[in-house]
Amino acid sequence: MIKIDYSNVSDSIIGEEYGLNLKNEFDKWAPKIEDIIKTLNFNKDKQGAWLQWMNLGYNEETVWYVKEYAAMVDGRFDNVLVLGIGGSALGARAFCHALLKPYWNMLSKEERNNYPRIFFLDNIDPDEIKGLLEVLDLKKTLVNVISKSGLTTETMAQFMIIKDKLQAELGDDYRKNVVATTDKQTGILRQIANEEGYKTFVVPDDVSGRFTVFSPVGLLPMALVGIDIDEVINGIKVMDLALKNTDINRNIAAQNALVHYLMDTEKNHYNAVMMPYSNRLSFVADWFIQLWAESLGKEKDRDGNLINNRPTPIKAVGVTDQHSQIQLYNEGGRDKLINFIRVDEFDSVIEIPRIFEFTGVNYLGGKTLNELMNAEADATTVTLRDFKRPNLTIHLPKVNAYYMAELFYMLEMQTAIAGELYNIDAFNQPSAEQSKNYTYALMGAQGWEESRHELEEKLNIKSETAYL
Amino acid sequence: MIKIDYSNVSDSIIGEEYGLNLKNEFDKWAPKIEDIIKTLNFNKDKQGAWLQWMNLGYNEETVWYVKEYAAMVDGRFDNVLVLGIGGSALGARAFCHALLKPYWNMLSKEERNNYPRIFFLDNIDPDEIKGLLEVLDLKKTLVNVISKSGLTTETMAQFMIIKDKLQAELGDDYRKNVVATTDKQTGILRQIANEEGYKTFVVPDDVSGRFTVFSPVGLLPMALVGIDIDEVINGIKVMDLALKNTDINRNIAAQNALVHYLMDTEKNHYNAVMMPYSNRLSFVADWFIQLWAESLGKEKDRDGNLINNRPTPIKAVGVTDQHSQIQLYNEGGRDKLINFIRVDEFDSVIEIPRIFEFTGVNYLGGKTLNELMNAEADATTVTLRDFKRPNLTIHLPKVNAYYMAELFYMLEMQTAIAGELYNIDAFNQPSAEQSKNYTYALMGAQGWEESRHELEEKLNIKSETAYL
Repeated sequence: MIKIDYSNVSDSIIGEEYGLNLKNEFDKWAPKIEDIIKTLNFNKDKQGAWLQWMNLGYNEETVWYVKEYAAMVDGRFDNVLVLGIGGSALGARAFCHALLKPYWNMLSKEERNNYPRIFFLDNIDPDEIKGLLEVLDLKKTLVNVISKSGLTTETMAQFMIIKDKLQAELGDDYRKNVVATTDKQTGILRQIANEEGYKTFVVPDDVSGRFTVFSPVGLLPMALVGIDIDEVINGIKVMDLALKNTDINRNIAAQNALVHYLMDTEKNHYNAVMMPYSNRLSFVADWFIQLWAESLGKEKDRDGNLINNRPTPIKAVGVTDQHSQIQLYNEGGRDKLINFIRVDEFDSVIEIPRIFEFTGVNYLGGKTLNELMNAEADATTVTLRDFKRPNLTIHLPKVNAYYMAELFYMLEMQTAIAGELYNIDAFNQPSAEQSKNYTYALMGAQGWEESRHELEEKLNIKSETAYL
Repeated sequence: MIKIDYSNVSDSIIGEEYGLNLKNEFDKWAPKIEDIIKTLNFNKDKQGAWLQWMNLGYNEETVWYVKEYAAMVDGRFDNVLVLGIGGSALGARAFCHALLKPYWNMLSKEERNNYPRIFFLDNIDPDEIKGLLEVLDLKKTLVNVISKSGLTTETMAQFMIIKDKLQAELGDDYRKNVVATTDKQTGILRQIANEEGYKTFVVPDDVSGRFTVFSPVGLLPMALVGIDIDEVINGIKVMDLALKNTDINRNIAAQNALVHYLMDTEKNHYNAVMMPYSNRLSFVADWFIQLWAESLGKEKDRDGNLINNRPTPIKAVGVTDQHSQIQLYNEGGRDKLINFIRVDEFDSVIEIPRIFEFTGVNYLGGKTLNELMNAEADATTVTLRDFKRPNLTIHLPKVNAYYMAELFYMLEMQTAIAGELYNIDAFNQPSAEQSKNYTYALMGAQGWEESRHELEEKLNIKSETAYL
């Protein structure tokens, strides 16, 4: 199992002013936590509770269909192109980046064991898309378009462009190169898929986009490039079982949610840095940023009180960002709780040869990069401790599908529990929806004419100091 | 020239509580700003003032040597491998990502106009490095090792590994595949380069790592992949001239420094989000993060007062992160000033074909991705304005070498001026140095034995709640 070292958030290490007495806090909060975990598990099948993500480890039929389709298309495509944005891209990308060989898309087909290259198109930058279309042979590309409603402007615009080109190259056969992940029955992409005759997978109801990584949204791209999704499912199940424990002393998601909550509400350390000491885990931080930011960044709590809930997730990568952000974390504002992720055993061990005898580099000879990585992580931790900056370390025994699933499911549960501690709805995103509506209006979608006029007026208002 | 729209930081737009009366503030701060700009320009050649970055646009000889070397090796290598970390990687990478064709390293040699692929190795993750070595044919790789002192643990460890392999493959000829960017006379990498006979370029004195992008640290990698560094130099010069203007009403670096400073000190909006609406500009945010964080994140001001200076830079990319972070920026803590970067003219225009007649997507047909990108940026801005969240927009006429240089030089000057407003030393990084020393100790470097013992004791102290 993954485990968490809380030493450096403890008052015995960083002092009472900034540290927590975890034993006392856990005792004090045990009943509340027990209640939260019971309620989450009690409500998980309730319609409209948005807790269906808790069931995604048990959907054997879906996993079977995903594997069946992946086996069917095995060897037929050189590329997988995922069209999706936010939760429709971040989870699978993080898994792929962690679990595929580094520089995957540059490897030969043999080096990829015949699995396709994979591209996630999560922006609409015309220069980027033009470049991508020059690199991809669409005939040999499987396009996985992902949108629950089919209203996702970016994804649908991408798909309209790609579908047009695919069809121009392949004629009616183009549909074999498309697989849609969308709503079960309603929604525009479902209608399009039915009319055009695409293979489809279902985005389940009552799962917020940022919690869909273990639905076909995430599992299908993973399976298409050869990630062992049975191992993913195993990881979820084991972690889910552990997190059903209502005793905070035995539940790391509850512990970590409480640590973050108390660091915010009692110690003012409300920003959560996610800093994996591993290049392969770097996109874990991107996925976590959406999860934490959209779930917890709410104007009002459930009772309508204005809270402007402030936890801000921030990405860093070790050791790289020791040369970028650590200076600020050590000495800057006392507003951050730093989450390290450390890998206990890398797949490779690389020795630094004894080739230079100059004092200042000679000590490196004969050591390994693995030792150096560990020493740097230790050095950073101790420095933060010297400056009394709270930090904790999530330990991953290895980077594999099983532990990645444990980690992601744990972070999802931690987020849900944090939402309960803050008494907010962790599963909506009202103001992100508002931006989307403004986009519809500005782009001339039907029914938004009035709003458009109003918006254009607003956009014309510039202060006299607009451009100086 | 690039320009900045400050409308949405103005009190006339977002109200007095969160907005600034820029006209009044500029008047009030004009003498102080004038003094800062005069002082910076007066001191720029002074030894130990760390202002030599202000002269990097005028070093014609260096530019000539860089171009000469790039021309000499032109066509000889398939790959450039940059070994560097922090400021030795982030600037050149941001330029390369912005200015090379997307997916550069996947293109054929012809599509790259015979220029090499380029890799920045800025971590020591053994799995990553093993993967890279499988992708690179070292015989056809030019290794640019960058470290001023030669004490940079990560870079030197990488170099020892790569040098050993290069020499095993190429024998004595290996040195033709190495170019070192390092100190002019002293330092270990200079000694190694002299002994081994490498071609070298100079990291100038009195330039902090994060301000070296326009020295050979940045210019050489750029030139090696065909970026027009004359255009870079032109951009710096034009911007430098503009920023010599001591009138705040005519100096965007001073304006933006002051806006950030006042948003922190008077309005509590101290976190700076850098959110380019362009995939090509996404690494600009990574470069800015080091610049802003290491320069401003200081425990004490110049007079020794404890300030724990708090500005925290945060990365986001538009439109992508509308689906990740915007919910938080709209509704969460009132602690952020959002810096958008918008590109007025993309290189490509891509039309969305009219192929689906379903209400909800049909409005997209016939529009362009460019229009959609603009509409989304506008929608996001208006939503933030509705929530009274301060934001400003830096306009780049196009993404090219000239405007990139303008942008980077402007941000450097803005950072230097902000340092003066905070009365801090913007050019050191004391606690990052402390971590480095701890690493030396833990790795068994000579002279650190005592420190090592002490550190190991510290690391053994765990709270009783370490792992629960």
